[in-house]
Amino acid sequence: MTTQRHEADAMRRAIALSRRGPANGANPRVGCVILDAAGRVIAEGWHRGRGTAHAEVAALSALPDRSLALGSTAVVTLEPCNHTGATGPCSEALIDAGVGRVVYAVADPGVSSSGGAERLRTAGVDVEAGVLGDEAEENIRPWLTTMRRGTPFVTVKWASSLDGRAAAADGTSRWITGPCARADVHRRRSEAGAIVAGTGTVLADDPSLTARDSEGRELSEQPMPVIVGRRSVPRDSRVFAHPAGVIEYPSHDLPGLVQMLAERDVRHVFVEGGPTLASAFLAAGLADEVLVYIAPTVLGGPMTAITEIGVRTISEQARMRFDHVDRLGDDVLLVARPLTTRHLPITKEDD
Amino acid sequence: MTTQRHEADAMRRAIALSRRGPANGANPRVGCVILDAAGRVIAEGWHRGRGTAHAEVAALSALPDRSLALGSTAVVTLEPCNHTGATGPCSEALIDAGVGRVVYAVADPGVSSSGGAERLRTAGVDVEAGVLGDEAEENIRPWLTTMRRGTPFVTVKWASSLDGRAAAADGTSRWITGPCARADVHRRRSEAGAIVAGTGTVLADDPSLTARDSEGRELSEQPMPVIVGRRSVPRDSRVFAHPAGVIEYPSHDLPGLVQMLAERDVRHVFVEGGPTLASAFLAAGLADEVLVYIAPTVLGGPMTAITEIGVRTISEQARMRFDHVDRLGDDVLLVARPLTTRHLPITKEDD
Ligand SMILES: NC(=O)c1ccc[n+]([C@@H]2O[C@H](COP(=O)([O-])OP(=O)(O)OC[C@H]3O[C@@H](n4cnc5c(N)ncnc54)[C@H](OP(=O)(O)O)[C@@H]3O)[C@@H](O)[C@H]2O)c1
Ligand SMILES: NC(=O)c1ccc[n+]([C@@H]2O[C@H](COP(=O)([O-])OP(=O)(O)OC[C@H]3O[C@@H](n4cnc5c(N)ncnc54)[C@H](OP(=O)(O)O)[C@@H]3O)[C@@H](O)[C@H]2O)c1
Repeated sequence: MTTQRHEADAMRRAIALSRRGPANGANPRVGCVILDAAGRVIAEGWHRGRGTAHAEVAALSALPDRSLALGSTAVVTLEPCNHTGATGPCSEALIDAGVGRVVYAVADPGVSSSGGAERLRTAGVDVEAGVLGDEAEENIRPWLTTMRRGTPFVTVKWASSLDGRAAAADGTSRWITGPCARADVHRRRSEAGAIVAGTGTVLADDPSLTARDSEGRELSEQPMPVIVGRRSVPRDSRVFAHPAGVIEYPSHDLPGLVQMLAERDVRHVFVEGGPTLASAFLAAGLADEVLVYIAPTVLGGPMTAITEIGVRTISEQARMRFDHVDRLGDDVLLVARPLTTRHLPITKEDD
Repeated sequence: MTTQRHEADAMRRAIALSRRGPANGANPRVGCVILDAAGRVIAEGWHRGRGTAHAEVAALSALPDRSLALGSTAVVTLEPCNHTGATGPCSEALIDAGVGRVVYAVADPGVSSSGGAERLRTAGVDVEAGVLGDEAEENIRPWLTTMRRGTPFVTVKWASSLDGRAAAADGTSRWITGPCARADVHRRRSEAGAIVAGTGTVLADDPSLTARDSEGRELSEQPMPVIVGRRSVPRDSRVFAHPAGVIEYPSHDLPGLVQMLAERDVRHVFVEGGPTLASAFLAAGLADEVLVYIAPTVLGGPMTAITEIGVRTISEQARMRFDHVDRLGDDVLLVARPLTTRHLPITKEDD
């Protein structure tokens, strides 16, 4: 095998390792693999969340013998940081260990943490950027979006019939989509930092807003539930028993909501409706991703999953593109991303 | 290669040959391949439409020397008929030619034409049924449905945004779906016997209801256009220039419409809307297939692609299953088939 091939394989492994870290934390998921001169894997590491070692340091610590780092290659999913935070800069750690070459996938978009590649090069380390960049980006898109733009990545989800209805005429909707689709929703919920519902949904359905497995057990990672709207919600609503606590946001100001969540270090906001709130997010141009779970049924009638979003004529539509089209059991999931959004980029101070 | 393998390959070829015949005719598309004792293809044939030779006879005629038929194997997509119509029974033709073995995919559902396999066996011909049956059935589903049930296969098509809208609030809808999706609609139109639109669509859009290629040229096969509704339509509407003529059906009686089309030997009815007519077909339980072309856009507002279909509560929904999920350019096509329909089986007299 060529070095290139070894390194691409190692990057795939590093991406897989990165997924062992928490998806809904403030820090990105990062994985690192250390290769010896022959291209053999000699250590692996990943970031376990804010306050713990970065992936590179974790991998260096996993070496059976520190001297093995001399002249080795570190393959890492994100550009090594150049920033002293809870831990020292990774670029320094790699230089100190005597690593000879660093291969990374995605450049660090952070204002204060970037510059690691430059620091490494200056110290004489051979650096290559962009290996499997698209795959690695996809893996940390919400975090990257938040770092680049200042506001979290917003997913708006709904489930409907083939004709866009979220319920039958009398409001009954159990079940339109099946268990596979629901399991997919719970998995995605658990990867988000916050799950947002309107007072309408909380008052109507009394949902627990937890992420659960198919047996109804809570998953280990739980998004923070947020209830949006001016009406107050009974204190004995199920959501108040949520393991991650509850945020009540008694306003219709959605850019303000997104900003508030940014300040709480949320990188991924999962908007789960109902129709009024999902439509309000779309109307405000705040959706970065739309997940539509479509069941093979037609319902007709007044209960549309999306109500009114202010498109008066066809030229005003906000076009998207399909990112994924998946079959989930009897249902279909369409994932679409708007070509543009109306998020206001926020100039953040260095943190 | 084994005989079985030779025969499966020949059946695939026979299915491909069958598609050279007209898709929207009264007769089924049938293909036939003749193999010698070594499994080599020695002749091919297909049915070119009502009044012309059946596939088996076409293949026998294509033999360089009639004596080659002796002891050969005929591989044919549909059970050889046992019926004297415009042409003599194919079972007789195969027996007379001295064919030793007949392999077919789908049993003939016709009351008067079936019995070919029995006739062949009685004459000492070795007969095998069901080879690639599912594939071959799929290829002639509308015809088979019509033969088995007495009423044509009904496809209901619509195009919408992700949230089930057929137009923006002001009625503008050019374009929601893109050129690939539109080309797919035209191709499918050209394979149907009739294309049905409501007076609402004809009055609003003045469509030509022809099947056209991407340059706007009419395809060689054209479905018969049918306008349904009590309002009269201006005589200078484009549809009156349709090469296949026009049927006006000034009534809302959809089972009657389907019956009328059955009597005109239509095997496949393509319902192209608008919303009122598509909803009426669904409400009547007459759709055998639903084609939904979904564009990556959200519109909101009042212009739903399906209006009201009489589902008051979720338990009244008519569940379907997804048959295909295809990406067509920027759009997605979902093909769903109801688990049950409310077509009335009609006892037809032998024809
Ligand atoms: N199909 C699905 O995927 C899905 C998902 C979730 C829920 N649902 C169903 O949806 C139904 C509830 O519908 P819904 O539309 O009333 O629920 P909703 O969207 O959850 O709540 C609507 C409320 O959100 C508040 N809100 C916050 N920001 C807003 C803004 N910018 N614009 C407008 N309103 C804003 C308002 O509350 P205030 O009036 O209190 O200010 C509004 O009345 C339930 O029956 C539930 O089962 C379906
Ligand atoms: N998105 C799409 O795929 C698509 C496809 C086609 C058209 N469209 C759009 O649809 C709009 C027209 O909408 P539409 O709903 O008025 O058109 P439509 O469904 O074509 O026509 C409605 C008319 O059909 C007649 N009809 C026949 N049988 C009926 C029954 N069983 N029940 C009820 N009505 C029956 C009635 O006409 P009478 O009143 O004359 O009796 C009724 O007014 C146009 O703007 C067009 O662009 C969209």
